[in-house]
Amino acid sequence: MEDELLLMLPGPVPLPERVRGVMARQAINHRGAEFGSAYADIARVLKGLFGTKNNPLVISGSGTAGMEAAVSNLGKGRRTAHLINGKFGERMYTIGQKYASEACPIKSEWGAPLDLEKLKSVLEDGCEVVTMVHNETSAGILNPAGEVGKICRKHDALFIMDGVTSIGGDMVLADEWGVDAAVVGSQKCLAAPAGLAAVTVSDRAWDRIVENPPYYLDLPAYRKNAAKDPMETPFTPAVPLFLALREACLIIEEEGIDNRIARHRRMAGAVQKAVKAWGLDMFPKTDSLHQYSNTVTAACLPAGTNDKDFRGTVKKLGIQIAGGQDHLKDKIFRIGHMGAVSAPELLAALAATEFAVKKSGHQVKESGVMTAAEDLG
Amino acid sequence: MEDELLLMLPGPVPLPERVRGVMARQAINHRGAEFGSAYADIARVLKGLFGTKNNPLVISGSGTAGMEAAVSNLGKGRRTAHLINGKFGERMYTIGQKYASEACPIKSEWGAPLDLEKLKSVLEDGCEVVTMVHNETSAGILNPAGEVGKICRKHDALFIMDGVTSIGGDMVLADEWGVDAAVVGSQKCLAAPAGLAAVTVSDRAWDRIVENPPYYLDLPAYRKNAAKDPMETPFTPAVPLFLALREACLIIEEEGIDNRIARHRRMAGAVQKAVKAWGLDMFPKTDSLHQYSNTVTAACLPAGTNDKDFRGTVKKLGIQIAGGQDHLKDKIFRIGHMGAVSAPELLAALAATEFAVKKSGHQVKESGVMTAAEDLG
Repeated sequence: MEDELLLMLPGPVPLPERVRGVMARQAINHRGAEFGSAYADIARVLKGLFGTKNNPLVISGSGTAGMEAAVSNLGKGRRTAHLINGKFGERMYTIGQKYASEACPIKSEWGAPLDLEKLKSVLEDGCEVVTMVHNETSAGILNPAGEVGKICRKHDALFIMDGVTSIGGDMVLADEWGVDAAVVGSQKCLAAPAGLAAVTVSDRAWDRIVENPPYYLDLPAYRKNAAKDPMETPFTPAVPLFLALREACLIIEEEGIDNRIARHRRMAGAVQKAVKAWGLDMFPKTDSLHQYSNTVTAACLPAGTNDKDFRGTVKKLGIQIAGGQDHLKDKIFRIGHMGAVSAPELLAALAATEFAVKKSGHQVKESGVMTAAEDLG
Repeated sequence: MEDELLLMLPGPVPLPERVRGVMARQAINHRGAEFGSAYADIARVLKGLFGTKNNPLVISGSGTAGMEAAVSNLGKGRRTAHLINGKFGERMYTIGQKYASEACPIKSEWGAPLDLEKLKSVLEDGCEVVTMVHNETSAGILNPAGEVGKICRKHDALFIMDGVTSIGGDMVLADEWGVDAAVVGSQKCLAAPAGLAAVTVSDRAWDRIVENPPYYLDLPAYRKNAAKDPMETPFTPAVPLFLALREACLIIEEEGIDNRIARHRRMAGAVQKAVKAWGLDMFPKTDSLHQYSNTVTAACLPAGTNDKDFRGTVKKLGIQIAGGQDHLKDKIFRIGHMGAVSAPELLAALAATEFAVKKSGHQVKESGVMTAAEDLG
């Protein structure tokens, strides 16, 4: 049945039973001790995952709502620059255009390194706010947040980082890197259901927060309510999702952040080795600063096949992987390995994908599944 | 235990077990048949509850996000007028000020009839968009949507109606009344968890939809994605909440809309009779157009007591009722009777409240609980 597919997507991801179970809780008062303690647990764990001392503000909305909150509260009426090497970088630019006095796109090809020289010149020219997608899932590339943060600080610009698909799965050190606003989505590496976004804001960014932000995304209002005891939100929160995210955070705490990041890297390494074994090309163009994503792998489709046939073959085996978006459709496929994913799901996904690779007529060099098993064993 | 309180609030409301249970479903692809069919079920039932032929657009966010979507997409850069007789009317005005070229408040006392003469003069003066809260929970008053709709149409103004706490519990006839945008929240009369808002937009409002709305609240993007087969949302939706809202909608369909409205009116009538039996005053000032709310009852606190003591007594008996907000704190108490509430919960709430009334030293005329039991029996 389609609705029983194993999702190996760059989110949403399969949810541990514990996380799903807590949503069956009867409705509780969202201005009371039980809700407040759930929010406090979330905040404690997310601080570690973000690498920040700042309180994560949780918005009932998707990761995009979190991004719009960051861009509108820091960028309204200002000159913004948007580093772009994939779909979500472009989305940040689109949001920037709605709020900035002038929004400057700094475009690379999807999956190619960011243009940091152009960034420097834009900053020298007086740009005040920079956005970057840390882990660009559309292209499977991990962008150099530390380097960009350093450049932004040097020019006293605010740095907004989309960590929607890195935070909770890969190393993020927001404070050390000079990130002024970081955003995560619940349904990615955190392995919670979709529907919540969390945003942290640095002290220097609070000092420069704009007047008159959008009403629902008014970060100072979230800050004020999160400072209450028990913690609250300015508007009625999606209570079951908070309870689920709390449970997901407790699971992360039990696993340990370092262990969790190491697991994601191990999974990513195994998939990369499988792609190599199949004799296919990885899609992103890496360099000393840009790396393959540790939470989603993007590889080129075998010549002579198309997205529908390829992913259709995988889907018939009960597994859903992702295709390319927009102009990358029919060019790449993507395997998500974020959240709670471990060896069994990964081996199943690689086996089904290997079958599709072979079915496409491509001559595989050797078995990617066995290579991955060797690597993970 | 506090977390086992029976919530008799104007939302969030107790959730039927069926509604809570479906959230434990494993994550599904939100761009697939199962999600699309959940959205379609929601849309079908909500159309009946809104009294409209227009497709409800479901936003992952609270009712406030829905209100901001309506006001920003219809009011940006325009002259708006905001009918106010309570907290949520004021909130609409605050949102209006963020988007309108000029936002005009039309203020009455909280709980007093709206000033429709002032509305007419503002419209004659060229105001283009009007907002009104149908059921003002802060004051327990039901405002005359049909009358306001008629006045708006006469002046060719767009009419935005906050139906957050009426739709699903009281009669709403959006198309017949000339409502151009109506909004509902999931955690009120629909008896679903908090975290979703639904907005419908009339054809004439679509013709006047503004350019460049907020990114996350871009109603044309929601419309475009809802028109797909299977139905989709522009951004990753809060999937468990959609599944829960679908189940809540199926329960509503089983009960029947007319039966559901009749039940809410029966509950409201019983509470009103209890208030009268206690010898307390109802808070709202009604007239031929303005009525007591059928989903929440606001009554004046007995003289000589305060909110903390009064509601504390009720809470010790395991039931949470609402107090007055802002300047009405220590003046009124409010009992929510929306959603799945029926006689047992209502009798429990009235018994605990009656005990608090007596404890305050107020001499009750007769038993409100028995009067309500007689009425409901």
